[in-house]
Amino acid sequence: MHSEHRKKLIEALTEETGIVWIKGASPMNRYNTDYEFAFRQESNFLYLTNCHEPDFEVIIDLDDQQYYLIAPKRDANYAVWMGFVPEKEELLERYKPDTLLYSDERDAFLKRRNPEKVFCLDAEQAKEISDLGFSTDDNLLADALAHCRCIKTEWECNQLRSASAIAFVAHTKVRQMLKPGLFEYELKAAYLQEAMSRGLLHEPYNGIFAGGKGSAVLHYVDNNRKLKDGDLFLIDAGTEYNGYAADITRTYPVNGRFTDLQADLYEVCLRALNNSIAKAGPGVEMETLHLEAARDIVTGMKGIGLLKGNIDEMMEKNIFALFFPHGLGHFLGLDTHDVGGIPKNCEPVDRPGLKFLRARRKLEPGMVITIEPGVYFIPALLKPAFEDPEKNPYLNVEKLSTMMDFGGYRIEDNLIITEDGVENLTRVPKRLREISN
Amino acid sequence: MHSEHRKKLIEALTEETGIVWIKGASPMNRYNTDYEFAFRQESNFLYLTNCHEPDFEVIIDLDDQQYYLIAPKRDANYAVWMGFVPEKEELLERYKPDTLLYSDERDAFLKRRNPEKVFCLDAEQAKEISDLGFSTDDNLLADALAHCRCIKTEWECNQLRSASAIAFVAHTKVRQMLKPGLFEYELKAAYLQEAMSRGLLHEPYNGIFAGGKGSAVLHYVDNNRKLKDGDLFLIDAGTEYNGYAADITRTYPVNGRFTDLQADLYEVCLRALNNSIAKAGPGVEMETLHLEAARDIVTGMKGIGLLKGNIDEMMEKNIFALFFPHGLGHFLGLDTHDVGGIPKNCEPVDRPGLKFLRARRKLEPGMVITIEPGVYFIPALLKPAFEDPEKNPYLNVEKLSTMMDFGGYRIEDNLIITEDGVENLTRVPKRLREISN
Repeated sequence: MHSEHRKKLIEALTEETGIVWIKGASPMNRYNTDYEFAFRQESNFLYLTNCHEPDFEVIIDLDDQQYYLIAPKRDANYAVWMGFVPEKEELLERYKPDTLLYSDERDAFLKRRNPEKVFCLDAEQAKEISDLGFSTDDNLLADALAHCRCIKTEWECNQLRSASAIAFVAHTKVRQMLKPGLFEYELKAAYLQEAMSRGLLHEPYNGIFAGGKGSAVLHYVDNNRKLKDGDLFLIDAGTEYNGYAADITRTYPVNGRFTDLQADLYEVCLRALNNSIAKAGPGVEMETLHLEAARDIVTGMKGIGLLKGNIDEMMEKNIFALFFPHGLGHFLGLDTHDVGGIPKNCEPVDRPGLKFLRARRKLEPGMVITIEPGVYFIPALLKPAFEDPEKNPYLNVEKLSTMMDFGGYRIEDNLIITEDGVENLTRVPKRLREISN
Repeated sequence: MHSEHRKKLIEALTEETGIVWIKGASPMNRYNTDYEFAFRQESNFLYLTNCHEPDFEVIIDLDDQQYYLIAPKRDANYAVWMGFVPEKEELLERYKPDTLLYSDERDAFLKRRNPEKVFCLDAEQAKEISDLGFSTDDNLLADALAHCRCIKTEWECNQLRSASAIAFVAHTKVRQMLKPGLFEYELKAAYLQEAMSRGLLHEPYNGIFAGGKGSAVLHYVDNNRKLKDGDLFLIDAGTEYNGYAADITRTYPVNGRFTDLQADLYEVCLRALNNSIAKAGPGVEMETLHLEAARDIVTGMKGIGLLKGNIDEMMEKNIFALFFPHGLGHFLGLDTHDVGGIPKNCEPVDRPGLKFLRARRKLEPGMVITIEPGVYFIPALLKPAFEDPEKNPYLNVEKLSTMMDFGGYRIEDNLIITEDGVENLTRVPKRLREISN
């Protein structure tokens, strides 16, 4: 599988001469302590090598397509503390490089090879090589890798399917446990237990388990409040499988039954999601989807009587972004906010809501995206809007001002763009009748 | 509680004039991605403020003992994404500084105060202040804080007691679940579920869940192997409560019953622990305890027939360090390997085993330490020793060479040094009859 990834990179750099060199990740410590974070490989390195071990390097020769893996030279002390230093044969078998080198052989190899140019991920890594006297380029490689990574291979799609399958089990557990009186962290604990006991090593992001008004904080990670009868509960939690992420959000009634207003607003959010999924496919622009979802939300809220006035005007005046202030979705892969979503020369937009859209491309088969519309009641946005003569006319201030602790909704699925539409990876129930009695 | 900590620091710096300034932690990201680690405050900052929020700073005036907390200036955008920006009154109530400043008021305050010297944690933080034109010292403060932190207050002891109480429940869960066929990560998942559902936010270190030969890797964190009937299982897992750590290790038979050899060696390790605990107390040197535990281990192993010859000679020739290659214990507090264990002018030792001892002080009431003897069968140490004419005569090579996959033991308790001995915080069962049928 990973030879296919390397081949894609070589093709992306087909006009270049020289070698690609990437240093894999080393363990990270917290501040100035010896607290070591659980090791997670850097995603570009992982993409090219499938090597989850620290302190490796990779060289890909663009001229003769040879693949060199450079293993750290470990001593007996490392074996005592960190354990299981593999023999050369084991590493060859495990990673199948054309040539395995050890770190103390690297510089001599580079001298013999004497590449015209060494392509590096960033200036810091490039410095290590230019200090040895070689010419480097830290401009092309990251873009070339983003170009490769944003179209997933079938093997990558399978990893993403597996990640979603594990997330399904963990999300289901949380929905079944949910009830008033629990602390948010109890649900997080149960979620992680389900996912970790199926092999989850790393959360792809710090999960959000938010009851009540916490559900209207986009990156709420306190997870320390008690769930109240009658409140909303928002879970935004993923898994990682072989490095590939799932990223799924659901919003439930804490007590198992939405009020009428809660249910009506849930359907507004769900309709925006379902419409976006129905429209997504090759050739579709994410910005278009974003604005159409925003229009769905404004239209739905007008129907409920929380907004009033002309829909086109509300779109023009960015009323939608008061309730849906983040992007509709992002690329998904080895990183949760995966690379390639924003092309290099893409003009930034400064429009509320839309400016946070992390995927601004025409969709192509093999891209993997999230779609995650939200409807939130956020005091920090609404209170100033109540006073703003540009916005106030569209708001039912009387009703909205009673909703400052209401919270918010987000519903998020993960999609593979296919030749004729999408494959939805997310099986966690989301129909109103499936989640509310 | 934290005013007591600040008072201790002012006393430790009683001969100095000026102010202490510390920048609390900001969120950390993984590599060049937007993956954000769960926020954990820097321990020195936490010690002085009890503030678990990012981007705060503290000033303690050594001349008039005033305590200033500097809060980050947050905008509406922060409230939308990260949520709940507290009002000034809330912060005053929460942290009780004499004066609350906002980050944009700091420089003007420093100019007005014009301190003779600003004491900083390290050169990087000092640069931020010296760039403003003030005289700084980044030498005294870290030591002064270590001096304060290594003697715990009663409030701190209570946090450590709570951490140990939560760890007790989680350790108990793992012992009850343990059986052949489980994957190590299933036990880790269950451990964390128990601890997190009681409020654990951060592991104080990446826990070790090691079956079979993995138990002889000191920092084994793969946690991905299946437990085998007849093997040992080593769990080294902690909790954090208000930032204070528990750090507990137990070794169990995977199938609930040790073999005779496994039981005999368990008792060797346990005796070293129990003897160390019995001897620990005010005035005792950790190095003495380490060497006496090493002697207990060598003596026990000779009794089992794995070692032979004169005990004094074996101690002299560091035979003990082949089986017990790490330190006997370390200080414990806001960091798992807490500060203050090694005094500033302490001569390093180069003796095997002993050189990894992280606590090399005469014990005093209020210090909190771990005691964690181990007995391991580590191929990377034993195979060379078999061939070493200095070591070979003491080793029963025939027996030992059959034990390359045997694994190892570590048993670890957490102790507060009291006026007349110790208070053992660790209640997880460790008697042979409690853990083996």
